[in-house]
Amino acid sequence: MNRDELRRLLAGVKDGSLSPDDAFDQLKLLPYDDHGFAKIDHHRAVRKGFGEVVFCQGKTPEQVATILERLSASGSPTLATRADPETFAVVRRSIPDAVYHEQARCIVVGQSKRPEHGPCVLVVTAGTADIPVAEEAAITADVMGSRVDRLYDVGVAGLHRLLDNRGRLLTANVIVAVAGMEGALPSVLGGMAEQPIIAVPTSVGYGASFHGLSALLTMLNTCAPGVAVVNIDNGFGAGYLAAVINQMGLRGHE
Amino acid sequence: MNRDELRRLLAGVKDGSLSPDDAFDQLKLLPYDDHGFAKIDHHRAVRKGFGEVVFCQGKTPEQVATILERLSASGSPTLATRADPETFAVVRRSIPDAVYHEQARCIVVGQSKRPEHGPCVLVVTAGTADIPVAEEAAITADVMGSRVDRLYDVGVAGLHRLLDNRGRLLTANVIVAVAGMEGALPSVLGGMAEQPIIAVPTSVGYGASFHGLSALLTMLNTCAPGVAVVNIDNGFGAGYLAAVINQMGLRGHE
Amino acid sequence: MNRDELRRLLAGVKDGSLSPDDAFDQLKLLPYDDHGFAKIDHHRAVRKGFGEVVFCQGKTPEQVATILERLSASGSPTLATRADPETFAVVRRSIPDAVYHEQARCIVVGQSKRPEHGPCVLVVTAGTADIPVAEEAAITADVMGSRVDRLYDVGVAGLHRLLDNRGRLLTANVIVAVAGMEGALPSVLGGMAEQPIIAVPTSVGYGASFHGLSALLTMLNTCAPGVAVVNIDNGFGAGYLAAVINQMGLRGHE
Amino acid sequence: MNRDELRRLLAGVKDGSLSPDDAFDQLKLLPYDDHGFAKIDHHRAVRKGFGEVVFCQGKTPEQVATILERLSASGSPTLATRADPETFAVVRRSIPDAVYHEQARCIVVGQSKRPEHGPCVLVVTAGTADIPVAEEAAITADVMGSRVDRLYDVGVAGLHRLLDNRGRLLTANVIVAVAGMEGALPSVLGGMAEQPIIAVPTSVGYGASFHGLSALLTMLNTCAPGVAVVNIDNGFGAGYLAAVINQMGLRGHE
Amino acid sequence: MNRDELRRLLAGVKDGSLSPDDAFDQLKLLPYDDHGFAKIDHHRAVRKGFGEVVFCQGKTPEQVATILERLSASGSPTLATRADPETFAVVRRSIPDAVYHEQARCIVVGQSKRPEHGPCVLVVTAGTADIPVAEEAAITADVMGSRVDRLYDVGVAGLHRLLDNRGRLLTANVIVAVAGMEGALPSVLGGMAEQPIIAVPTSVGYGASFHGLSALLTMLNTCAPGVAVVNIDNGFGAGYLAAVINQMGLRGHE
Amino acid sequence: MNRDELRRLLAGVKDGSLSPDDAFDQLKLLPYDDHGFAKIDHHRAVRKGFGEVVFCQGKTPEQVATILERLSASGSPTLATRADPETFAVVRRSIPDAVYHEQARCIVVGQSKRPEHGPCVLVVTAGTADIPVAEEAAITADVMGSRVDRLYDVGVAGLHRLLDNRGRLLTANVIVAVAGMEGALPSVLGGMAEQPIIAVPTSVGYGASFHGLSALLTMLNTCAPGVAVVNIDNGFGAGYLAAVINQMGLRGHE
Amino acid sequence: MNRDELRRLLAGVKDGSLSPDDAFDQLKLLPYDDHGFAKIDHHRAVRKGFGEVVFCQGKTPEQVATILERLSASGSPTLATRADPETFAVVRRSIPDAVYHEQARCIVVGQSKRPEHGPCVLVVTAGTADIPVAEEAAITADVMGSRVDRLYDVGVAGLHRLLDNRGRLLTANVIVAVAGMEGALPSVLGGMAEQPIIAVPTSVGYGASFHGLSALLTMLNTCAPGVAVVNIDNGFGAGYLAAVINQMGLRGHE
Amino acid sequence: MNRDELRRLLAGVKDGSLSPDDAFDQLKLLPYDDHGFAKIDHHRAVRKGFGEVVFCQGKTPEQVATILERLSASGSPTLATRADPETFAVVRRSIPDAVYHEQARCIVVGQSKRPEHGPCVLVVTAGTADIPVAEEAAITADVMGSRVDRLYDVGVAGLHRLLDNRGRLLTANVIVAVAGMEGALPSVLGGMAEQPIIAVPTSVGYGASFHGLSALLTMLNTCAPGVAVVNIDNGFGAGYLAAVINQMGLRGHE
Repeated sequence: MNRDELRRLLAGVKDGSLSPDDAFDQLKLLPYDDHGFAKIDHHRAVRKGFGEVVFCQGKTPEQVATILERLSASGSPTLATRADPETFAVVRRSIPDAVYHEQARCIVVGQSKRPEHGPCVLVVTAGTADIPVAEEAAITADVMGSRVDRLYDVGVAGLHRLLDNRGRLLTANVIVAVAGMEGALPSVLGGMAEQPIIAVPTSVGYGASFHGLSALLTMLNTCAPGVAVVNIDNGFGAGYLAAVINQMGLRGHE
Repeated sequence: MNRDELRRLLAGVKDGSLSPDDAFDQLKLLPYDDHGFAKIDHHRAVRKGFGEVVFCQGKTPEQVATILERLSASGSPTLATRADPETFAVVRRSIPDAVYHEQARCIVVGQSKRPEHGPCVLVVTAGTADIPVAEEAAITADVMGSRVDRLYDVGVAGLHRLLDNRGRLLTANVIVAVAGMEGALPSVLGGMAEQPIIAVPTSVGYGASFHGLSALLTMLNTCAPGVAVVNIDNGFGAGYLAAVINQMGLRGHE
Repeated sequence: MNRDELRRLLAGVKDGSLSPDDAFDQLKLLPYDDHGFAKIDHHRAVRKGFGEVVFCQGKTPEQVATILERLSASGSPTLATRADPETFAVVRRSIPDAVYHEQARCIVVGQSKRPEHGPCVLVVTAGTADIPVAEEAAITADVMGSRVDRLYDVGVAGLHRLLDNRGRLLTANVIVAVAGMEGALPSVLGGMAEQPIIAVPTSVGYGASFHGLSALLTMLNTCAPGVAVVNIDNGFGAGYLAAVINQMGLRGHE
Repeated sequence: MNRDELRRLLAGVKDGSLSPDDAFDQLKLLPYDDHGFAKIDHHRAVRKGFGEVVFCQGKTPEQVATILERLSASGSPTLATRADPETFAVVRRSIPDAVYHEQARCIVVGQSKRPEHGPCVLVVTAGTADIPVAEEAAITADVMGSRVDRLYDVGVAGLHRLLDNRGRLLTANVIVAVAGMEGALPSVLGGMAEQPIIAVPTSVGYGASFHGLSALLTMLNTCAPGVAVVNIDNGFGAGYLAAVINQMGLRGHE
Repeated sequence: MNRDELRRLLAGVKDGSLSPDDAFDQLKLLPYDDHGFAKIDHHRAVRKGFGEVVFCQGKTPEQVATILERLSASGSPTLATRADPETFAVVRRSIPDAVYHEQARCIVVGQSKRPEHGPCVLVVTAGTADIPVAEEAAITADVMGSRVDRLYDVGVAGLHRLLDNRGRLLTANVIVAVAGMEGALPSVLGGMAEQPIIAVPTSVGYGASFHGLSALLTMLNTCAPGVAVVNIDNGFGAGYLAAVINQMGLRGHE
Repeated sequence: MNRDELRRLLAGVKDGSLSPDDAFDQLKLLPYDDHGFAKIDHHRAVRKGFGEVVFCQGKTPEQVATILERLSASGSPTLATRADPETFAVVRRSIPDAVYHEQARCIVVGQSKRPEHGPCVLVVTAGTADIPVAEEAAITADVMGSRVDRLYDVGVAGLHRLLDNRGRLLTANVIVAVAGMEGALPSVLGGMAEQPIIAVPTSVGYGASFHGLSALLTMLNTCAPGVAVVNIDNGFGAGYLAAVINQMGLRGHE
Repeated sequence: MNRDELRRLLAGVKDGSLSPDDAFDQLKLLPYDDHGFAKIDHHRAVRKGFGEVVFCQGKTPEQVATILERLSASGSPTLATRADPETFAVVRRSIPDAVYHEQARCIVVGQSKRPEHGPCVLVVTAGTADIPVAEEAAITADVMGSRVDRLYDVGVAGLHRLLDNRGRLLTANVIVAVAGMEGALPSVLGGMAEQPIIAVPTSVGYGASFHGLSALLTMLNTCAPGVAVVNIDNGFGAGYLAAVINQMGLRGHE
Repeated sequence: MNRDELRRLLAGVKDGSLSPDDAFDQLKLLPYDDHGFAKIDHHRAVRKGFGEVVFCQGKTPEQVATILERLSASGSPTLATRADPETFAVVRRSIPDAVYHEQARCIVVGQSKRPEHGPCVLVVTAGTADIPVAEEAAITADVMGSRVDRLYDVGVAGLHRLLDNRGRLLTANVIVAVAGMEGALPSVLGGMAEQPIIAVPTSVGYGASFHGLSALLTMLNTCAPGVAVVNIDNGFGAGYLAAVINQMGLRGHE
């Protein structure tokens, strides 16, 4: 149940088109739906503007399928991240129209409307190996209704590739900058662009990258203003926050 | 020189009210002003929407004073962070109307207009000892033209203090959440609020807080969506990004 | 041999129903039983109130089986943790009534009596992926004679799930709080409940969770009083200590 | 206001001896008392069984004095930790009967009743340099109404000092074990005693002690069951939890 | 070529029983034998009293076999550590009397004489899972000519197992103390024994043991004098140093 | 396209032997060639003196093959590092004369000319297990046109092996020093040689080597002047920089 | 004694102008000069091309003065780093023409010849606070006979300041890139310049810069080729290596 | 009371020259002497062969003086480490013949006999700044009755200084190797000498030395056999162990 549905329900009670008892039946699951191993948070779409997102790591495929069935029952678009192909195979049995984005390791159920033109979330990567994390961000923002633009492999060792695409920055409301190794991309972007930048360190690298620690510290210490950071490889977190900010910008754009 | 001034100048050249030579004189400092020890970035207000901010740590009071004089010459409001009282004493000699915010350790020159009502940047702290960092964020957002609301000492060990102020969350476009020690505040806020949350870990604590590392890791690992993180004690970075996001929301609000 | 058995034996010697020689035979193994690769501590039940628990990691299945046979010979309930299915397969050959708890990875031999009602050990998890560690705690407390209540998936990103179950907290003598990622659950519980809280960080997470380090630091830095912490993923340690504290509370409850 | 006072108040309303208006006046401060820089949690004594404890680090002496005045107004014993002599000097001006425990760096206002005999909290240190942290634990447990026994300088390098005092362990309901450097004391105690052990690593040491990290890791990795750990140098946290457990044991003892 | 052989050779040149040319042929390989991928150090037995020991990790089985053939050609006992069964299978083809110690993962070629009685190297472990590292130490000391005594599974959580075997300590010239998890064994031994103690942290444990870091730090921070530490899991290093010290003690014992 | 080709092209335009249109066709790919997943940097050979090198880790074999095809089209020698045999199998299908260096895990396309005599890059290793990283450095310098000399297994535990080869140092323009474990080789070399030393820590070791961290810190803290360090296992980076420095020395040598 | 002097001395012996006895007297100090607390390495200028440099930290002013007197006796220029004003005050008493570079904290005795034009060492900083470390590098290279060019405060947050000075890069043989905080400058330079780049991380920053660790990791993980790294704040090491490389380039330039 | 005194006492009881009651009086303090803040371990000289050594850090000067008075009452030589001049001033008041070694920061009471010739403990440092730690080791071994030889400032960057003093190594029974920064000295010594080497990392250095961590890791990872390590800056621990090993060697030497 999302916020519009909740408002409609309450209006229905007020104008008499819905009996309090029927409203009660619809609302009684509102806080959460207790499955023992999981308490599904149907209320999150009301509080946060988008429903609970399923983090598949550490859950059995059957648990994921059960949770996704309940969450998608309302018809709102639903997302599961960190899903491997085995999980998707089990999910598809009970939700035939679920879609699997392999690079992003995301399962999407249902389709959100998003604009074909206008301001967008721009997802940028430093290298080719950063693309899976970037795709997790892109799919997340897409499911949440944002138009997404992608600009991949423009790392700072070949600055002209980025300077050349400077124009693409102008159409974005918010930028997701994904980089591993030394993670310098958000600093350079932060010196060029006025939009909020969500920096995502990735675990791409070896040796003293310490599984993404190097890029994480780089991004946290950026001397460019307007940058904030999410966890290593957390494409979902960046895409989610970018979509929220983009909605604010779109309302300003209208 | 800010963007409006630049647009006016170019319009003046176009309509003939300004000779190209005079325009050249005004623009020739545009990229930066080279003082040897510092290259003052007069162009940043054009690129980023707000002028260069002076980070005083590691600079002599005289260097800070020189840079602030040049930056504030245009009349735009100017900010210096991490300023100790000695630095301010030197600055005040050449810029008498500079103002020192002691808790925030900020020097402000000039005054920005900001709305007295309407959507704001909400700065929240977990404890009393987090206030200096919070004030750096608040002063920064204020100088950049945002209305700022403060909600201090509402940490998760006494949840009712936060739940009680739930209404304050509704008026914010963006939340800055400042916390040391275990740093759990942004996670709880992230479960309650739909706005973007900029989390600021502080070095408040002792022992295994490792000078803010504990709070930093907590915030990076939050399972609540919609949260991004800046460096430990980086109130400035949070306030800056919050002000940028708030402007986007204000444009939507109008 | 546990404490009651030891007291009975000594009483038997005193009242002449047991000859000193027979008592000696029963007692001679008391300090430990030397198998070369292991010195089985039969005395621990006397000193600590519960017999030695077998930590299977790093031991061969045959070593585990040998130790469990000796420990369970007295008839007291016996526990082995971190046991994989292969180990259990070997153990079952020599101890047919051994029981395997798959999620908890525990082998239990024998059955302790525990109350069906009254004060209990409450095991709480932040997420679904934390359940295996929670089950290790729950099985441990259960084997040691405590009633156990389980409250799973009530993490701080959906606070209403926890607030809604506030009543469950009242029936507990002690709470085991299990959480990975940011590990904020014990801090929130510590602000709500007066009972001792044993916090268990889990290695659930990725990136800057650093295999549980993030949750560990969070819990150590909690600003809520009444919380102590055990090792990452150490469900056994938490369940053991919780059972000891619960017995103290039960004696007060009688 | 503590729990007994609250029960009396409600009983008074029920039996008519207190008017609802007067009850309201007494209760209206219940959630917290907002001073801007601090929201004093008067409700904590109701929720947790002991009032809010003031952590002085990061607060000005004036802030501490203000908070202590409000907290101690009800007459319940009140505690402030990490207080330096300067803070105490300011506090004493407005609260003349405040007492300063120098080694423990604690300010205590008011006096709790505690038994002179019977089960106690036993505070043990490995060395002489660990005593300040141990005293913080001891004063905390004392203020909360527990009898406290002290056994100092019995580290594992001279085991006979500990074995010799084995009898002291028997009278304790709970043990607080304080150690720096290698921090092995709780492991040895955990092999000897059946009571819950709260282990406190201290920052005593040098070099690879890394300001207490060594002792912290030792204690978290103990192979002795029945041990949980608090933050480095967190004598308060250990004393608080020990007092809570001791009360449970005392109720069983009665 | 070892030192006795070198002395005999030089004596032979002096007394004329060996021509300088023949001596030259025998000596010309003395510095090392260059195989491109390895420079085999035939001179080490002269400098250090025991020949080069082959560390197999990172070498192909064929490289190990080649090096062992050359080193063992002189007839002195030869040792290879960290050898897996595949490596041994290849070695045995060219050196049929090579012996494989599976738990210790050591290959030994040739047999050293060692005393059956008298002072020894005592190898002690805290737990059963520490035995493989202990065996690497024991085999190393044995190959180098020391009598070795083993005392396994006497960790500090059951102190009576260690106190009971106190007599075993008296017969040792030097003690190798092997422990994982909290690694407290050397501290307790260091308080009881006057002999040099070589402490070996092992990677046994989980969570905050951080692959042996916890035990390593414990041992480095021991407050018991007479203890030094080698690398995590470095049974070889401890056994080697123990054998060298034991030889010094034996000379004193004669 | 490398610099010589670019100069020839521009000269051709000047002297009329090349039409501007044809020059344009050849230059239009200059900045980069956009494949979506990768922006191939054809311009790097102009800026840096050697073309883009493909880092295979994190790329699919097909992506590597596509990029190598484009980069090698100009006929300049081309290098791909961190290539596994599967990747090479795919590359060979479309580039039949590609060569695979198994120990170095490098794919080379095309052949650079390099001198057979004269000053060289000297690659030195401490042990046998460091050879794969050393080979990555050697192949890189070779492809870039440097003569390479190899001196392997001369670690500091057998100093005579290094002192004996002191003469080899004299013929080098620059030294690449590769070492794992304690990583002391560059310090000793730095005390003996006047040439620049590029130190490469390797992940060879175990326990407290922490995957190369130990060797990295050793090399960064060297008290010998003339040493700089690259990432753990980064043979490529060292070989590249060594080749650049060697070219400078060669120009001096001519 | 430097190399030229040594060659002259040996030539003098050969042609009879110097008696072997006199040569012996001059050479007998060659290896080192033993002062108990220090063994002054007069031979280093022969082996390394520049004399021993005194690292003052941890030495008393008197020790520094004694060492400098001996080193500078030959007339070659001599350098001491990490010297505070107190040390210089003592040094100046015995060496009146010693010069103190305050920002660089260097003492220089004697003057080297260096070219006024032509290729140079270019020292670049990201910020103003990095200048002291940069000056240590610049003074070192200057003393060793290199022309030095300085380009300060051109960090990546204002890229135009760097792009604008692109021409300055062309005149350099080698670049020293000094940066704190996120340390991204060498990556950007490495994408633009073909010269060797010596990257120097500085401890400038706060919070998650962890005293320069962040910048260090960034630089080690750079994806730009041609970059090597020295210790945090090690301006001396960078300047030394840059001077050595510059000499190689100058010989090529002649 | 040391071991000889204890043997004499027991012999006196046996032959009747000492009454059991008098023996009891002398022995009753044997385990320890309880001062509340410290339990002075008079028994240690019996168990360990040398009396308790006082670690002054964290103790008040008065506590140190009290403990030293009691320990030195028996006339055996007594040692206190990490003593600052203030502590010594207090100690001297009650123990006038106490001696202060300023560089070593040690207080010594009483004088041990030690040989003037023959095998010794050789203390070696890499640099001048390592001398204070080396002196702590030297004084400790001296107080315990070992002849001590010192060889300072022979670090690996000038190898000839060490090779030149190779002869000094031959007279030692055991070597204490003290080094900061990269800490490579013990590895080089371990390749040259057959004696046991006790390696002491020091906190000398800066930047990535991380207060001695770099040298510590280097030493733990040494590939030279025969080396063990003590805590950073732990000169005492190294000197103590060296003295114990030296005594073993001396007995062999007699």
